[in-house]
Amino acid sequence: MERTHVVVLGAGFGGLSAVRELARDRRVRVTLIDRNNYHLFQPLLYQVAIAGLEAPQIAWPIRALLRRYPNVRFLMGNVESVDTVDKRVWVDGKAVSYDYLVVSVGSIAHDYGIPGVREHAIPLKSLSDAIHIRDRVLSAVEEAVRTVDAARRRALLTFVVVGGGPTGVELAGALAELNRHVLARDYPEIAPEEIRIILLEAGERLLSYLSPASSAYTQRTLERMGVTVMTGSAVSEVTPFGVRLQDGSFLPAYVVIWTAGVKGMPLPGLPAGRNGRIPTTPQLFIPEHPDIYVVGDLNGLEVDGKPLPQVAPCAKQQGAWAARNILRRLRGQPELPFRYWDKGNLVTIGRNHAVGEVRGLRFTGRLAWLAWLAVHIYYLTGFRNQVMVLGNWIYSYFTYDFAVRVIHRRHQFPYPEEAVRLEEPLVETSAS
Amino acid sequence: MERTHVVVLGAGFGGLSAVRELARDRRVRVTLIDRNNYHLFQPLLYQVAIAGLEAPQIAWPIRALLRRYPNVRFLMGNVESVDTVDKRVWVDGKAVSYDYLVVSVGSIAHDYGIPGVREHAIPLKSLSDAIHIRDRVLSAVEEAVRTVDAARRRALLTFVVVGGGPTGVELAGALAELNRHVLARDYPEIAPEEIRIILLEAGERLLSYLSPASSAYTQRTLERMGVTVMTGSAVSEVTPFGVRLQDGSFLPAYVVIWTAGVKGMPLPGLPAGRNGRIPTTPQLFIPEHPDIYVVGDLNGLEVDGKPLPQVAPCAKQQGAWAARNILRRLRGQPELPFRYWDKGNLVTIGRNHAVGEVRGLRFTGRLAWLAWLAVHIYYLTGFRNQVMVLGNWIYSYFTYDFAVRVIHRRHQFPYPEEAVRLEEPLVETSAS
Repeated sequence: MERTHVVVLGAGFGGLSAVRELARDRRVRVTLIDRNNYHLFQPLLYQVAIAGLEAPQIAWPIRALLRRYPNVRFLMGNVESVDTVDKRVWVDGKAVSYDYLVVSVGSIAHDYGIPGVREHAIPLKSLSDAIHIRDRVLSAVEEAVRTVDAARRRALLTFVVVGGGPTGVELAGALAELNRHVLARDYPEIAPEEIRIILLEAGERLLSYLSPASSAYTQRTLERMGVTVMTGSAVSEVTPFGVRLQDGSFLPAYVVIWTAGVKGMPLPGLPAGRNGRIPTTPQLFIPEHPDIYVVGDLNGLEVDGKPLPQVAPCAKQQGAWAARNILRRLRGQPELPFRYWDKGNLVTIGRNHAVGEVRGLRFTGRLAWLAWLAVHIYYLTGFRNQVMVLGNWIYSYFTYDFAVRVIHRRHQFPYPEEAVRLEEPLVETSAS
Repeated sequence: MERTHVVVLGAGFGGLSAVRELARDRRVRVTLIDRNNYHLFQPLLYQVAIAGLEAPQIAWPIRALLRRYPNVRFLMGNVESVDTVDKRVWVDGKAVSYDYLVVSVGSIAHDYGIPGVREHAIPLKSLSDAIHIRDRVLSAVEEAVRTVDAARRRALLTFVVVGGGPTGVELAGALAELNRHVLARDYPEIAPEEIRIILLEAGERLLSYLSPASSAYTQRTLERMGVTVMTGSAVSEVTPFGVRLQDGSFLPAYVVIWTAGVKGMPLPGLPAGRNGRIPTTPQLFIPEHPDIYVVGDLNGLEVDGKPLPQVAPCAKQQGAWAARNILRRLRGQPELPFRYWDKGNLVTIGRNHAVGEVRGLRFTGRLAWLAWLAVHIYYLTGFRNQVMVLGNWIYSYFTYDFAVRVIHRRHQFPYPEEAVRLEEPLVETSAS
């Protein structure tokens, strides 16, 4: 018998939970398509960026996850567009036809049209972004050691994180610990206070989706860790040499990380609404295309006027929900409107410091931090990775060390004018 | 007091052992220069290439190794040339002057002038080489799944290793295990026998520096593991589509790995002898430049007419020896001629199979294999990495799994003529 073919785009949290749900029903066969051959555990991406974890430890081979599902196959490729008329998806110039489509390609960094962001700031969305940040930060410090020009050295040792959301907070905190515990010991040529971590937030407080008390605690903790927190500081431009703020001031910095926001990944052939997110019915399908479901960051469904949060738990719930709705349709049962179950929020700031809010309940400090660790190990994909990551964390906790300080591709930092370079005396003089 | 400045080029086995020896003597200050910020444990590089180990686990931050030496500093940079007249080294356009120089920049792949090798074959000398091989092999299998053209599919699933030395043998064996234990389970679309691993050796036997008995055992074992061993097969050309042999035959293959030999890393300003190795006195310095010592793969010293083996133990011994000779000179003592202590050879072929020869004594099978494991864990740099690697090995041994199957950069495989691509029907037909 010809089984219903469900094509799932994207092997993130939304796509995978849809596949797991669909795989149970033998009346469907599933094709999962992703441009990577691994499922990425995004919540720990920032720890790869600061050399705390090895990249593969938060990535799990998709095919290993699908081994137990005979009715699911995987296709690695770039999804170019969706042909809603002939009901097929174009993948690297080849067509894959579908009966039902689950779109879960996620989101990309949003530059809000600010000049220079795309060219000179680094987002933190993919594994290569994280490795790029690690390479850039470590290369900057190595370069600073060889640099005698005071201004250039200062710019090389200034790391700017734009965006006071969870990613920005976790990354800034982690960079502060990298500096205090690792760089300080590795670089006798550099005084710890020479390295500055600046967290820029356009709004008036960090983690604005949490209570003001949590925001205050977060900022206090970061500042005690040595992070310079600048709220109400909107970026007007990013250049190869630093960040210009809307008040006209300029922060010289060679490493600028962009966590200021995301927008839906554009997918030609499908409609796009606010922030590139695709509006759907409460049943999670596109009104004009009832056989196309959208889940995760890309889903633009609004509940009482507010869009749903772009977080892993929501993506997982929507993925499974869309899958169940498809199966209900096959059984001739009515589809059900999506109900989001808010599990609450947890953000880690640094060792022994995190902030959490679960249904009105607020908790901070070591308790929240341990809860954060437990939750992330629990949800991390793959037993081997759980062991590896836990091992790394225990190692780092007791040794104050982030061991993965490997520069894969050394970054070359530009010179404002070539003159500066020629003026520089021998490395010798700056050394002995 | 002005201390003697010893500059060490290269943080490999030779350079590091020189630094460790020199650091003991407070009358010298040492500058270690390397283009990478890590010390690479080359003997396990092939395990990164076959997804058995994470890259950082065989790399250790140089600065972490130098923390305990106050008279040693590290400089990350590309050594461009040596100015023997003014006694200085040019690093990224900046000069570093030396009193004594220890050159340990190692070797690079030797293409023997065979056309296409540099462009289309992948060497296995650096961390990025290993990651490149992993990306290429896994990308080829993913591409094969989406390919219906039989010839192209066959070429995509053919992996050619050129060179029957230790690296070629270990890599071919590891690829065979990757295929048999991992790919077979991950790719229901591909029959295990479709994937072919071919080991090409120009000479008439593998591991020619060992006894014929060991060579025979190695070939037998590889063949039992499914590797096609072709001895007496010299390569005349490598193209984007495969390998041409001197007998005129052509092996279609998209992944060709080059382990056929090495030559000394060229360093402008210094003389170079056979295979780019620099001839030295038995005291390990260059006759024309008594203040420049050469150690490791680059050293061309011949003992009774034979060049010394380009292996880690020899590099380590020479590094320490050169350092001691420099210190002896500072003390006004006579330098000593280098004596190489041959620790014997160990080559692993696959799980429970290795071959070893120590001072005439031959041993094979599980005993040799366990010895190989023990030796490599023992010499691996960094306690954390020792634990991580051992953990990975135990995991792989019991699960038959190589977990690091992450494609960092997907490889695009060329088409002989664009026509082939257009002719290909929808992916669909090749699937359901």
